[in-house]
Amino acid sequence: MTFSAQQIAMMIGGSVEGDAQAAVDSFGKIEEATAGQLAFLANPKYEDYLYSTGASVIIINDKLVLRQPVAASLIRVPDAYNAFAILLTKYQQLQLQQMEGRQEPSYVDETATVGKNVFIGAFAYIGRNVRIEDGVKIYPQVFIGDEVTVGAGTVLHPGVRVYNQCSIGAGCTVHGGTVIGADGFGFAPQADGSYQKVPQIGNVVVEDNVEIGANTTIDRATIGSTIIRTGAKIDNLVQIAHNVEVGANTVIAAQTGISGSTKIGRNVLIGGQAGIVGHIRIGDGARINAQSGVSKSLDNGKSVTGSPAYDYSAALRSQALSRKLPEMDQKIKALEKQLEELRRLSMANGF
Amino acid sequence: MTFSAQQIAMMIGGSVEGDAQAAVDSFGKIEEATAGQLAFLANPKYEDYLYSTGASVIIINDKLVLRQPVAASLIRVPDAYNAFAILLTKYQQLQLQQMEGRQEPSYVDETATVGKNVFIGAFAYIGRNVRIEDGVKIYPQVFIGDEVTVGAGTVLHPGVRVYNQCSIGAGCTVHGGTVIGADGFGFAPQADGSYQKVPQIGNVVVEDNVEIGANTTIDRATIGSTIIRTGAKIDNLVQIAHNVEVGANTVIAAQTGISGSTKIGRNVLIGGQAGIVGHIRIGDGARINAQSGVSKSLDNGKSVTGSPAYDYSAALRSQALSRKLPEMDQKIKALEKQLEELRRLSMANGF
Amino acid sequence: MTFSAQQIAMMIGGSVEGDAQAAVDSFGKIEEATAGQLAFLANPKYEDYLYSTGASVIIINDKLVLRQPVAASLIRVPDAYNAFAILLTKYQQLQLQQMEGRQEPSYVDETATVGKNVFIGAFAYIGRNVRIEDGVKIYPQVFIGDEVTVGAGTVLHPGVRVYNQCSIGAGCTVHGGTVIGADGFGFAPQADGSYQKVPQIGNVVVEDNVEIGANTTIDRATIGSTIIRTGAKIDNLVQIAHNVEVGANTVIAAQTGISGSTKIGRNVLIGGQAGIVGHIRIGDGARINAQSGVSKSLDNGKSVTGSPAYDYSAALRSQALSRKLPEMDQKIKALEKQLEELRRLSMANGF
Repeated sequence: MTFSAQQIAMMIGGSVEGDAQAAVDSFGKIEEATAGQLAFLANPKYEDYLYSTGASVIIINDKLVLRQPVAASLIRVPDAYNAFAILLTKYQQLQLQQMEGRQEPSYVDETATVGKNVFIGAFAYIGRNVRIEDGVKIYPQVFIGDEVTVGAGTVLHPGVRVYNQCSIGAGCTVHGGTVIGADGFGFAPQADGSYQKVPQIGNVVVEDNVEIGANTTIDRATIGSTIIRTGAKIDNLVQIAHNVEVGANTVIAAQTGISGSTKIGRNVLIGGQAGIVGHIRIGDGARINAQSGVSKSLDNGKSVTGSPAYDYSAALRSQALSRKLPEMDQKIKALEKQLEELRRLSMANGF
Repeated sequence: MTFSAQQIAMMIGGSVEGDAQAAVDSFGKIEEATAGQLAFLANPKYEDYLYSTGASVIIINDKLVLRQPVAASLIRVPDAYNAFAILLTKYQQLQLQQMEGRQEPSYVDETATVGKNVFIGAFAYIGRNVRIEDGVKIYPQVFIGDEVTVGAGTVLHPGVRVYNQCSIGAGCTVHGGTVIGADGFGFAPQADGSYQKVPQIGNVVVEDNVEIGANTTIDRATIGSTIIRTGAKIDNLVQIAHNVEVGANTVIAAQTGISGSTKIGRNVLIGGQAGIVGHIRIGDGARINAQSGVSKSLDNGKSVTGSPAYDYSAALRSQALSRKLPEMDQKIKALEKQLEELRRLSMANGF
Repeated sequence: MTFSAQQIAMMIGGSVEGDAQAAVDSFGKIEEATAGQLAFLANPKYEDYLYSTGASVIIINDKLVLRQPVAASLIRVPDAYNAFAILLTKYQQLQLQQMEGRQEPSYVDETATVGKNVFIGAFAYIGRNVRIEDGVKIYPQVFIGDEVTVGAGTVLHPGVRVYNQCSIGAGCTVHGGTVIGADGFGFAPQADGSYQKVPQIGNVVVEDNVEIGANTTIDRATIGSTIIRTGAKIDNLVQIAHNVEVGANTVIAAQTGISGSTKIGRNVLIGGQAGIVGHIRIGDGARINAQSGVSKSLDNGKSVTGSPAYDYSAALRSQALSRKLPEMDQKIKALEKQLEELRRLSMANGF
């Protein structure tokens, strides 16, 4: 799609300086953009690029005073970064809305109900009694098991698998290869050393506006539901075990693992590769540093790091000191020697 | 499917109290269950729910003495939890058995042999000379490469990939997105700094009754076989490198990684996010704590934790003390000061 | 395919001892090989197997002096291991070249251009304006989004997903389930505690001769490109975030995670389960040990370990001493006691 500077200015409420008909059909970083591209300048550090860039249209801050003439058309707005982000979001939504209809071959069970303006890609599978609401976009090769619900406007990228009976809310995005609703990992040890599977008959409930990255796994509950609350953001390759609950607007970075039945509060921030044991509670607003190993419940607002994890500041002090262990060891040895010497002297000297 | 209290009692060898015709068609937790659901009460802590639950049928322990009348029909058995688990397992097996036939479009090479009571989902791919034994359930979008064998009763969930020449035993379950038989990670460094791939021509052998979670990766051997022995249970997002052997009934939690050629014994327990270096041997019955980094072979029955991992109890003591490092550091400084003082005094005092 | 000892000798420039017509159709380890198999003996430690193996043909080193007669046909070469690897590579390339044509059903958009000697497996999806160069092998169930380029001779294994606008170079191998080009993980916090998605409109550029393992995730850039340079080797379940750059011939072991905008140099070696924070620079030839947590930029050639990671040798000393913490703690307590005693004595003795 091609847009003129004038059209873009209307979309983001800006005013044009220069050729209002200058046309762009893609985006670029200001330092790399070429003719026909739209760029933005938010950080004054990059102002020099404004005068050398090949971009045809540039979004800039209202207050920027030009030091020399600019070849490109300019669009002035109060906050160039925000305006650019809003524009991109609108652009992507526009693109998504244009995806519509059903590619063949795809498999849609006759008992499934499909809303308006839905896209179903080739090789997608939609099982019995599934409900797909309006505006859902199902990329090729997605699997949707029996009795699943997918809320309005949700986007499922290629190769997402949603097992039977799970539900995905409205306005969600799930990236490629993510598996929602596989069996929780539960086995009862038997007398002969083997294990008997504990059936996992619960499901996964993903609420609205949740984003889930690629190749992440969220297991179904043993009984009841594993729940991902509204607005949670989960990165790639994250493991969420059975009966876990992730609170609203909680953010979980890549490769983190959360063990069974743990409840994570709202607005928690969890760094990458962190591990959290089962059956604990992480308070609202807690912060868990990357690679932490959390083995105990955390109060609201608590910050931790390390494995095992504890108070962030205290752990940083201990980590710093652990680098001084060789020095501390030397000091102890020196003290022992000096003390021994002193004692010998004292003894010689006195008693 | 709907079952009466009487039918359920027959399946699990229990006796009904109340309406034997009370009907249920799904399961619920006793604290959440509604009319038409089956629940169980095993833990006396939850007994209050027995009198308030909406469940229509409840499985309880033989010995439970009711404190007040119960609206639901009761089924008494020696062990309510076990009976419930057995019932669920039977129910799920029944559901699986009903999956049969071949959905279209699917791809089955004409040289493949397919047993009785097999299900092949839409968009599944079955290559040349594959042998699928009786009762195998292949969900949609599964890939089975050439010359693969899949044993009787095994279930492959959506998007499982089994590369050429690998074999999966009987009674196994493999969850969505798991990749079995991708190339091991072997590259020979060249004089110019680049790497030459070492061909990986072995395979993966998964024995019987193995369960493998979602998005796990098990690489084929360089030569010979990567082997997962009978009854092993492997969670989600686990990495098992080329030529590894995992012993019978060994349990590996999510996101653990095992490097090339390492041999894991029988009945080993490995926590989540653990890492094990290559070319070592983990003894039977060893226990490796979550997030451990195991760099040396372990004797039978050994328990370890930490990164690098060592003896569990000793490591816990050191971990606890590492939190006291600031205190120890202060003590050392105080000792140095006091000793210096004492020495000055001694010198002043004596020699 | 069956080959005679004579044919194999010609392929690898060796000379045959024994029956030049001995035929083999597969490979085996010398200790396990059976009739009809080809094996090799490179490590003198295994020489005994030479006299007991069932292999029909064995590649051995020129200089090996036999201690007793060998039943198999022998092929003598300067370096048996190298010759075997070269043979395997040729064999696998031959097998790949034979894969050709298009299995049905598959989906190839009419605007896509497809080169010569290309294989497209069943249920593969190829979007608008895609360019597939000569000799590319696309296994079943692969997804290739709009405007993607795949370079000559590249192999995409089952279930690989390449999102819109990404490009894969020539001579690459990508294993099953890997997702290239999912959205980077970028969200702007809002006043109400929720998050606004930052659109991710960049792409991923994979250069030539790159190998990527199974179920790995490489996110597209926010703007610009996430770049994997020529010859890089990336293992399974690795996470590479938006705007990361991985240098030429850099090797990354399984389950490692690299956060956004970090630049990794050339010929870096990164062990398994390592984590690297965002916005730093890892110098050429650096070595990062398994399970390290790298939080600061590293100079060229630097070796680090630990979490947080620092100088390899120093960290090893501290790790060793951390095991002696109980002992150090005892020593400090003993010193305190002795010092107190000495002070009391001194005081009694002097002033």
